[in-house]
Amino acid sequence: MNPLKVALLGCGTVGSAVLRLVEEQAADLTARVGRPVQVAGVAVRRPDRHPEVPAHLLTTDALGLVTRDDVDLVVEVIGGLEPARSLILAAIESGRSVVSANKALLAEDGVALHAAAAKAGVDLYYEAAVAGAIPLLRPLRESLAGDQIRRVVGIVNGTTNYILSRMAETGAGFSEALAEATELGYAEADPTADVDGFDAAAKGAILASLAFHSAVTAADVHREGISSVTATDVARAAEIGCTVKLLAICERVAGEDGDSVAVRVHPAMIPTAHPLAAVGGAFNAVFVEAEAAGQLMFYGQGAGGEPTASAVLGDLVAVARNRVAGAAGAGPSAYADLPARPIAETPTRYHVSLDVADVPGVLATVATEFARHEVSIATVRQDGHGDAATLVIVTHSAPDAALSATIAALREVPAVRGVTSVLRVEGLS
Amino acid sequence: MNPLKVALLGCGTVGSAVLRLVEEQAADLTARVGRPVQVAGVAVRRPDRHPEVPAHLLTTDALGLVTRDDVDLVVEVIGGLEPARSLILAAIESGRSVVSANKALLAEDGVALHAAAAKAGVDLYYEAAVAGAIPLLRPLRESLAGDQIRRVVGIVNGTTNYILSRMAETGAGFSEALAEATELGYAEADPTADVDGFDAAAKGAILASLAFHSAVTAADVHREGISSVTATDVARAAEIGCTVKLLAICERVAGEDGDSVAVRVHPAMIPTAHPLAAVGGAFNAVFVEAEAAGQLMFYGQGAGGEPTASAVLGDLVAVARNRVAGAAGAGPSAYADLPARPIAETPTRYHVSLDVADVPGVLATVATEFARHEVSIATVRQDGHGDAATLVIVTHSAPDAALSATIAALREVPAVRGVTSVLRVEGLS
Repeated sequence: MNPLKVALLGCGTVGSAVLRLVEEQAADLTARVGRPVQVAGVAVRRPDRHPEVPAHLLTTDALGLVTRDDVDLVVEVIGGLEPARSLILAAIESGRSVVSANKALLAEDGVALHAAAAKAGVDLYYEAAVAGAIPLLRPLRESLAGDQIRRVVGIVNGTTNYILSRMAETGAGFSEALAEATELGYAEADPTADVDGFDAAAKGAILASLAFHSAVTAADVHREGISSVTATDVARAAEIGCTVKLLAICERVAGEDGDSVAVRVHPAMIPTAHPLAAVGGAFNAVFVEAEAAGQLMFYGQGAGGEPTASAVLGDLVAVARNRVAGAAGAGPSAYADLPARPIAETPTRYHVSLDVADVPGVLATVATEFARHEVSIATVRQDGHGDAATLVIVTHSAPDAALSATIAALREVPAVRGVTSVLRVEGLS
Repeated sequence: MNPLKVALLGCGTVGSAVLRLVEEQAADLTARVGRPVQVAGVAVRRPDRHPEVPAHLLTTDALGLVTRDDVDLVVEVIGGLEPARSLILAAIESGRSVVSANKALLAEDGVALHAAAAKAGVDLYYEAAVAGAIPLLRPLRESLAGDQIRRVVGIVNGTTNYILSRMAETGAGFSEALAEATELGYAEADPTADVDGFDAAAKGAILASLAFHSAVTAADVHREGISSVTATDVARAAEIGCTVKLLAICERVAGEDGDSVAVRVHPAMIPTAHPLAAVGGAFNAVFVEAEAAGQLMFYGQGAGGEPTASAVLGDLVAVARNRVAGAAGAGPSAYADLPARPIAETPTRYHVSLDVADVPGVLATVATEFARHEVSIATVRQDGHGDAATLVIVTHSAPDAALSATIAALREVPAVRGVTSVLRVEGLS
């Protein structure tokens, strides 16, 4: 049987695992696809750095490889916007189906890439772009296709989850935990993409697009990282039975002028009894709430060469089968076309800790500020010590702008000596 | 646009939820499928019992409905072997794709039904048959298609999970907890299918077939229910940091003459730190270990009209899209054709509690019995009280036949006054 030929773009941790798995599982892949699957070439920048790859496969001419006559399918694991985008478009426009693990590119330019794939009648699959090995995009796109998804809440970045887990375990501050993560290889030398939430925001945009059948890009995502999370925040969370996690939250919000999609990435306190709270270290998990299906959770390894390669190979089998059948699979749809909702108008809940003077009327003064901004208080705890006291307040749900305006106003109240912790709260009933 | 017409067979809890969702989500389904989807008829035994269904849709002639000229797709939610099997075959043979939630039928006759579907070029999908709303079969079949699955361990029966959860919480025995479950509607009047593990065994056979690309039927599954689990078993489990769950375990076992598939359903102790241990009440969860992907877990509602209907609708969208595209999706493959391994030759681990006479040499006598059967002991705890003592033993892994022979031999040892608890142990490192 004539083999299907694959062009592999990039040969780092993921690419080399893909190359190895395609060889190791050749017999199984043949049986599952209906034809043998072979790597026809591997495009890299520095061939001399890949002694493990047979020399005749290596090339620096990625564009030439992608458009070579004998290439049927393209696997892109270079990452980043360029040259990945141009190479994927060249592959699609010349009739090749593409499997990609590129979250940044899909979050930025998914609409254009999908349109190109639909026009060319080829597949563009990218399960590996979100939450590594966890089968997530296919379930969202296909298994829940007959349901209405309400919310998707995910821990989708292993580096920040490791740092926050260590802060909770050791009482360390952010810098100390980051230094440890860097030393152990859990954080990159430049940790910005992880720590500042860019990575999670890209994944949030992809999840929201699929869940709500709407075009959501990274620019639509409200993004806050974890560098301002303090040891005090983590301790305060524990006091109210919560733990701090960096969450990517995608919600369908009903409004007077129709539904919209709110996507945000920020640290938040969640109850320790919530299924996401137990997701520690470098694991990822995504919690989905749908009208009929109810609550679902998907859990597994979110990064690493082998797990990510597993997701790439699952997609490779799917696009190869489609190629053998002479058809393309159904692409994601954007028919709902829901607008993005700004964070200011998105309902959230806050936890606030205040250092206040322990004088009569302080609570009344503070409560008045909340009321003035139409923010309703759910619980207050007041601990007096000497002439000072601590107020720990958890609000009900309110527009985020009202909550942040309340905090700004509280900073100006004379009796409030300091705002010691402010974090959003998720998953409380 | 010409609508796709669906024949709905059965209108109980799941069927009526399917009917309602197809109507409520008509606009979304049209957008997702590319053509409207309409229920053309509902086959029931007693039309007078379904006042909620428009009268012109109801019929008692299921076979006539399935083969009616205008019907494109068939949804079977009757359950049981007949007439479901004949109706599904009639649908397939007359060119209709089928969505089914029928675990008993798929576990018994999946091979023949798939062969018929392949021959007719139609789809047979059944996500709802295992673990209700949890997207599980599609991820196993497609997302992990490029990986090698090693084990699938699931809590796939909500009734038994509820009963075992209550036994752990209250210290009640099996009969008492079953009575409570029956009263609350978590157990049926005749609880045999759940309590004796038939339901879980059918799901295990389906999971194993997909995970290992081999034909596994319910008859290949070793099955033990929970009616012999005692309050003592549950208490002993807690003492060693474990909890008792009814597990469906599907494993690929390497042997001298090639790999085989071992599928078993039985109660087992698992460590409380294992992700499955926290799955309480009527929830289901399935833990998957794959070569490259590592550990994955899928969690959600395993039963109920709405969650099951969500899975049915996801499949309905898939088969409808395929129909619009003029193609059938890839069916499951059985190319690996691995033989089923009998329980006697399957490696397991046991926990055993013994009441023994507190005399010198008892431990040596007991240890000798284990050694004689070539079973290695992992841990022993000995608690003396008066002239008696309790021995709590956890073994290493050994063929199940050797373990059960050891227990039988221990019952004949004079110093052993009683075997108070025997349960298999899973998930210990």
